[in-house]
Amino acid sequence: MEAPSQPAGPSPALFFQTVNAHQRTEVLRTAIELEIFTAIAEGMKTPASLAKRCGASERGVRMLADSLTVAGFLNKQNSEYSLTPDSELFLDKRSPAYLGGTMNFMLSPPLIEGFKNLTGAVKKGGTVVSDEGTTQAEHPEWVTFARSMAPMMKGPADWIANWVSQQSPHARKVLDVAASHGIFGVEIAKKVHHAEITALDWANVLTVAQENAEAAGIKDRFHTLPGSAFAVDLGQGFDLVLLPNFLHHFDVPTCETFLKKVHACLNTDGQVITLEFVPNEDRVSPPAMADFGLIMLATTPAGDAYTFSQYDRMFRNAGFNKSEMHDVPASNQRAIITQK
Amino acid sequence: MEAPSQPAGPSPALFFQTVNAHQRTEVLRTAIELEIFTAIAEGMKTPASLAKRCGASERGVRMLADSLTVAGFLNKQNSEYSLTPDSELFLDKRSPAYLGGTMNFMLSPPLIEGFKNLTGAVKKGGTVVSDEGTTQAEHPEWVTFARSMAPMMKGPADWIANWVSQQSPHARKVLDVAASHGIFGVEIAKKVHHAEITALDWANVLTVAQENAEAAGIKDRFHTLPGSAFAVDLGQGFDLVLLPNFLHHFDVPTCETFLKKVHACLNTDGQVITLEFVPNEDRVSPPAMADFGLIMLATTPAGDAYTFSQYDRMFRNAGFNKSEMHDVPASNQRAIITQK
Repeated sequence: MEAPSQPAGPSPALFFQTVNAHQRTEVLRTAIELEIFTAIAEGMKTPASLAKRCGASERGVRMLADSLTVAGFLNKQNSEYSLTPDSELFLDKRSPAYLGGTMNFMLSPPLIEGFKNLTGAVKKGGTVVSDEGTTQAEHPEWVTFARSMAPMMKGPADWIANWVSQQSPHARKVLDVAASHGIFGVEIAKKVHHAEITALDWANVLTVAQENAEAAGIKDRFHTLPGSAFAVDLGQGFDLVLLPNFLHHFDVPTCETFLKKVHACLNTDGQVITLEFVPNEDRVSPPAMADFGLIMLATTPAGDAYTFSQYDRMFRNAGFNKSEMHDVPASNQRAIITQK
Repeated sequence: MEAPSQPAGPSPALFFQTVNAHQRTEVLRTAIELEIFTAIAEGMKTPASLAKRCGASERGVRMLADSLTVAGFLNKQNSEYSLTPDSELFLDKRSPAYLGGTMNFMLSPPLIEGFKNLTGAVKKGGTVVSDEGTTQAEHPEWVTFARSMAPMMKGPADWIANWVSQQSPHARKVLDVAASHGIFGVEIAKKVHHAEITALDWANVLTVAQENAEAAGIKDRFHTLPGSAFAVDLGQGFDLVLLPNFLHHFDVPTCETFLKKVHACLNTDGQVITLEFVPNEDRVSPPAMADFGLIMLATTPAGDAYTFSQYDRMFRNAGFNKSEMHDVPASNQRAIITQK
């Protein structure tokens, strides 16, 4: 969104902008559906040529493209549109960094429904959509997640794989908890050639991870452990446990109980890498990490965006040694490295 | 919305912020429903006291208030929340400038449904919700509008009434087209004591205008003309015709045909005051006016946010003399004054 203009006196601008914010989501969804960004990247610059390429009306495309310009996704000069550098990289369907597919998860029914019932969630203190929300066993939502969110995780997965290859190059047995698309383990396996990955997730989700492992050519070092992370036997002798976007779904006691189980499966010099939305201690910055907590309120019984001091305490209560936090560039997330 | 942070390299921040923009709308809706702003104005500053006052959970209120802080509606210091000056003026239910009620219209089913079908509207070049969208005769939506949007129109109504009392103090017969809540005519009648107002709108809507005229004590100078603006006989001898937020619902030929009818009902030295969302000639600034066109695409067959040069041409084609445009302070709108 553009910064609201700042008139001298009081202004209702932020109020009206926020009431209408849902329209911005629909503008972007429509542009992705009609492949407006891809068409502009291909050289269509006018409403007439875009309309022809996208199977839409010239009038509709002109109004949509103007709104995309207002929102900061396009530039407009002399009635012709062009992509911003970010739109070129992330929204052209032919780009390897294309993010359009992530909308399948981020605007999926459970998330939309959670926010449609936000008042109920604030009253109750947790999701009112169902008893367990998206933490329910084998929830089909997590197949959608695995199929659509890998592009968003590429940056963090690269960062983690680089960290492991540089700081922990002897790691051999790696457990990836709630592996989803599996790309955290896959990227480590590509960089650390003796690493054996065990991907833990629901059976329906693991089929996606296996496809990705096969496509990356590391299938023979990619093993699966189907079931609930809380219920399955994790085994023994791991050098490294990955906890990417897992703990935020649960309350503190549940996290601590699970971390004790993780502690037990690690070798003496083992480590945990947690990838998470970690707001600052004020809980209201940086914006994208601070706002994540509300998604947990709307869609889970008791999840949250925990601060570093909260994570540090959970790990210590589970028997771990010190944790340190790293910013992960070009992402909304942070990595916490914890020593057994 | 806050301005997205600007990292050095390419960033998916705007994309993710926009995909999740619908959540901001729900955050604000929930805060208004639970009267969070009013409660803070009353002195509740902590999640515990707010939860008690608002009938909600402490955990839910804490997460909601953090999100409202991220969005710019609250300040937070040492786990206590306070209102920004804008929130104090516009979002405390006890404030005369309270805007919370406008959400009843701005998030009403026809508007939401229009944007849920935005892809269809872009393809077709107009609303796909129904043949006539919100321009359908006696659409109940306009009663909702009349009942909820008057606070948003207070600033422009004051501006217009001041303009008339200073620039056109001899105006006697005033026609308010699509009068809705009627407050444009009401404010003129309050400032210009010989003015007689004729409010034109659907009969179901005019009951709201009559209530407001009665409350303002100008009922005896407030007359009604029920029906379609296109079909009714406007009569003769008007000194001033008001066209507040009317023309944007229709295409240019329809507007021109109607303006000829307006021309015919005016005295020789008569004037028209048009209040509208008028984007600059580039059609992509200022943001709130430029974005308005898309609402017309989503909810009407052929409406638009027209530029000043387009309005000037419509008026000239209908036989009018010159038009001039004025910014209306503390609003998203502009006024166009046209001489017969």
